[in-house]
Amino acid sequence: MDLWYTEKHSDNVGITMKTTGTLFSGKSEFQQLDIIDTLEYGKMMLLDGLVMVTERDEFVYHDMIAHPALFVHPEPKQVLVIGGGDGGSIREIMKHKGVELATLCEIDGLVIEKSIELLPSMACEIDGSNPRVKLHVDDGLAYIREHQNEFDIILVDSTDPIGPAVGLFEEDFYRLVFGALKEDGIMVAQSESPFYHAEIQKNMYKNLRAVFPIVEMYQAFIPTYPSGFWSFAFASKKYHPVKDFDRERAASRDFYTKYYNEDLHLGAFMLPTFAKENIAD
Amino acid sequence: MDLWYTEKHSDNVGITMKTTGTLFSGKSEFQQLDIIDTLEYGKMMLLDGLVMVTERDEFVYHDMIAHPALFVHPEPKQVLVIGGGDGGSIREIMKHKGVELATLCEIDGLVIEKSIELLPSMACEIDGSNPRVKLHVDDGLAYIREHQNEFDIILVDSTDPIGPAVGLFEEDFYRLVFGALKEDGIMVAQSESPFYHAEIQKNMYKNLRAVFPIVEMYQAFIPTYPSGFWSFAFASKKYHPVKDFDRERAASRDFYTKYYNEDLHLGAFMLPTFAKENIAD
Amino acid sequence: MDLWYTEKHSDNVGITMKTTGTLFSGKSEFQQLDIIDTLEYGKMMLLDGLVMVTERDEFVYHDMIAHPALFVHPEPKQVLVIGGGDGGSIREIMKHKGVELATLCEIDGLVIEKSIELLPSMACEIDGSNPRVKLHVDDGLAYIREHQNEFDIILVDSTDPIGPAVGLFEEDFYRLVFGALKEDGIMVAQSESPFYHAEIQKNMYKNLRAVFPIVEMYQAFIPTYPSGFWSFAFASKKYHPVKDFDRERAASRDFYTKYYNEDLHLGAFMLPTFAKENIAD
Amino acid sequence: MDLWYTEKHSDNVGITMKTTGTLFSGKSEFQQLDIIDTLEYGKMMLLDGLVMVTERDEFVYHDMIAHPALFVHPEPKQVLVIGGGDGGSIREIMKHKGVELATLCEIDGLVIEKSIELLPSMACEIDGSNPRVKLHVDDGLAYIREHQNEFDIILVDSTDPIGPAVGLFEEDFYRLVFGALKEDGIMVAQSESPFYHAEIQKNMYKNLRAVFPIVEMYQAFIPTYPSGFWSFAFASKKYHPVKDFDRERAASRDFYTKYYNEDLHLGAFMLPTFAKENIAD
Repeated sequence: MDLWYTEKHSDNVGITMKTTGTLFSGKSEFQQLDIIDTLEYGKMMLLDGLVMVTERDEFVYHDMIAHPALFVHPEPKQVLVIGGGDGGSIREIMKHKGVELATLCEIDGLVIEKSIELLPSMACEIDGSNPRVKLHVDDGLAYIREHQNEFDIILVDSTDPIGPAVGLFEEDFYRLVFGALKEDGIMVAQSESPFYHAEIQKNMYKNLRAVFPIVEMYQAFIPTYPSGFWSFAFASKKYHPVKDFDRERAASRDFYTKYYNEDLHLGAFMLPTFAKENIAD
Repeated sequence: MDLWYTEKHSDNVGITMKTTGTLFSGKSEFQQLDIIDTLEYGKMMLLDGLVMVTERDEFVYHDMIAHPALFVHPEPKQVLVIGGGDGGSIREIMKHKGVELATLCEIDGLVIEKSIELLPSMACEIDGSNPRVKLHVDDGLAYIREHQNEFDIILVDSTDPIGPAVGLFEEDFYRLVFGALKEDGIMVAQSESPFYHAEIQKNMYKNLRAVFPIVEMYQAFIPTYPSGFWSFAFASKKYHPVKDFDRERAASRDFYTKYYNEDLHLGAFMLPTFAKENIAD
Repeated sequence: MDLWYTEKHSDNVGITMKTTGTLFSGKSEFQQLDIIDTLEYGKMMLLDGLVMVTERDEFVYHDMIAHPALFVHPEPKQVLVIGGGDGGSIREIMKHKGVELATLCEIDGLVIEKSIELLPSMACEIDGSNPRVKLHVDDGLAYIREHQNEFDIILVDSTDPIGPAVGLFEEDFYRLVFGALKEDGIMVAQSESPFYHAEIQKNMYKNLRAVFPIVEMYQAFIPTYPSGFWSFAFASKKYHPVKDFDRERAASRDFYTKYYNEDLHLGAFMLPTFAKENIAD
Repeated sequence: MDLWYTEKHSDNVGITMKTTGTLFSGKSEFQQLDIIDTLEYGKMMLLDGLVMVTERDEFVYHDMIAHPALFVHPEPKQVLVIGGGDGGSIREIMKHKGVELATLCEIDGLVIEKSIELLPSMACEIDGSNPRVKLHVDDGLAYIREHQNEFDIILVDSTDPIGPAVGLFEEDFYRLVFGALKEDGIMVAQSESPFYHAEIQKNMYKNLRAVFPIVEMYQAFIPTYPSGFWSFAFASKKYHPVKDFDRERAASRDFYTKYYNEDLHLGAFMLPTFAKENIAD
């Protein structure tokens, strides 16, 4: 059966993937959720028709949203993930044995439920079996407003700035995150593609710099995201992601990372000229 | 008119782009050449149905095939490009004023001719007006066999290892290139996607290591290539691309590079774990 | 979610339909069965990746495979359907109150089972509730070999002549059908598209004419079939589909037919020149 | 090169065809004109992105817009085509030797010019070589307003009722056509697909019946048009398309028609129930 999923990255370009079927299709209170099976990328989760994660390349996204901050902060114990209902970020955080508690605050309970059911390789740590993981089905903004000065690291594992995630790209939100972090806390947020989303990035980094003293962009290759060239914002109160990076500590990690490593950590912050210029102060 | 070009990157995944028309379609002695106009990426050249270059993202490929070697070699004077009939590599080489002569050896005269006619922003230095550029319409293997010990740098700007370029990925070819380089010469070759072409890469790097003492892979984001994650092989007789890199010289370059810069040069060699492991000795 | 099903009608042309999901996907002993949901045509059944029926346009196919023969034969009592596991042909036959028994001989039990479950508007008469309908999950050839001289009408409601249906287009099969019909029996078989399948038709009608004294082609518009222009073979021992057609009896039918009517019956046999010429003796 | 043209027949369904290139793309004062080359259907003309004619299946459309009226009218001498700038209708009219003058009134000169250049098999009679053909580049409404009581037959060979052709589906236009016809004149107009355009048809036939005493729909299969099931309106002052049809005269025509023939003429007026009901008085 010639069934193809196409995601338009703009009106004029897209990625197209052969599909063997839909595993789940439903509308939550917040968004349309689909989980489909693809021949090249395995199971794939879509929110409002856009690719969120695929089994084959999620390792890139989850390595890169989690490990840079966790290896820069000298002793991360309390970690919050906003969004990230597939569980992949929590899975990576759990590999850091020093983390005492990772909290997942996801607005859409259906995403969590269906990830546990259909994407167990990602959701393995959010199924209730790990006492170091706490789930909150709640709006991220509401949650952090009531949990100020609590976290060493906050990961904003959100969708694109349309739909339920639009507030997660604004200065007010970053102020709340800043307050929810301890005095040496670090926030990491996915920050779209330098190739296709230059305007969104310009605003996002301006908003971040209005709040955090240290703001750096880093990059990763994610084949199923628009252009394949993706970025993350590293916003920090105290630690610089390169100058304060303890390469030896990262090199001696006791778990395998298929994408991240101690050298790539540094290289990820070395950006193409056009990407750097776009978000320059 | 809803006219879309789709390039399958495997049987099960591809990129699709809206097209406004074909500017040229023809068969040379060697391959099918098409130049089409796309709304997102501008004019695009295809060989045997595969994207070679697009106006919008060619800056990445051409920056990255040319500048790393030209900034590592202390005094490149004689440079050879094998393939590269669109002229983009030659254009970048010409920005290095110390280069006395850049030779383009392209097997397919039609590619050169149509690039000059339809892709002038790339072919600007191969139209006969620059005395520092020499064109040979010839088979690369034949050419280097007769030009041993002549070049400081050889860039292998080839198509994928199918069709006319298949020989350009084999050990015999690398031995010829080795011989055509002076005793401190450097070869750079495009080396496919770590994500989709792991087997091709494994063989290619094994073949290169059988010939060159220094062989390193570096990476670049090229949205219109399979997965967006692309790589180049840096094969060198004497200079190491990182240890022998003069960051200051690269930083003080007198021309603009939209992708390449002195930091990105270093970061490009810091590879994801899976990519590094695949080509490990 | 931008999920599209595409059926290639040749290497170079196809139909494409937006899909909201797969309702069933599975492999039987004989073929791949998929039932998907489309926005334009409702639920659609595919065998080996090809459209068999859709909720929106099945009325054309089922009206036209069933009613012409049932209105030409003066008193059809015993009717056999070979293939047709979706039940649509049986549903139309049941509208003729004089029919005493309609037998469905479908090789693939999974098609029947899933039609009853997912396509109830077609399968309404094959769910076991109607004593005038008998189901046999069996090979059509084997079945008719053991039921000679039994039927007034046999409808060959088969897939294309690839896969399990290939034997249903050959002379040997038509001889068996001839034998299974009573001395004034009629066979109707779907006979592909005059536009795309001229060679298949040429052979099929030659084979039919070697067996039956009366063989005529008639046509119907089926939007989801290749070219939209489809045909049926009327092969008969005694009754001619036009000369022996009782227009008044058809006009006074006591049920509604959305496609078929007494005038269209006649018009269906008036073929375009190219279609007629292709199957001329 | 995997270049595909897709025409959406609704938001949720379309036809897709492999293309080897664009032969012409340009914007006239009235519309976007593209002529592309397809592997399955040969050269194809598009207006505002919609298929108008293809080399492979234009014979159906042009046979069926022209011959029914020309064989019903006992002595057609003056024929007008409104639209039809590709020349296919004129070519068919010219096969009727009794026609003294066929006038083509096409609003868009670019369509005529490019058809002569790129579609010579259709435009063969509008290239200026035939003294029985007269060209007017003009608005059809303006033209017939000034040519009342002049024509035996008027063919409205228009695009869909969007863009420049929208006025050609309204009652005011039909009144002008009525006036431009002699007292026994006949108008034929393409009247969209019964399957996809039921509402447009309902209005169009209501408008026609407000003006003409005899209005009948007839059908043809056109694979590249939406659903493949197409229709024409036969609107006449005196002659009925079936009752006044001289089958013998049509049967003894001295030219070949690949689609039309004297029996098909009759069958074309025998419509499916749903199509007939939709336009019933």
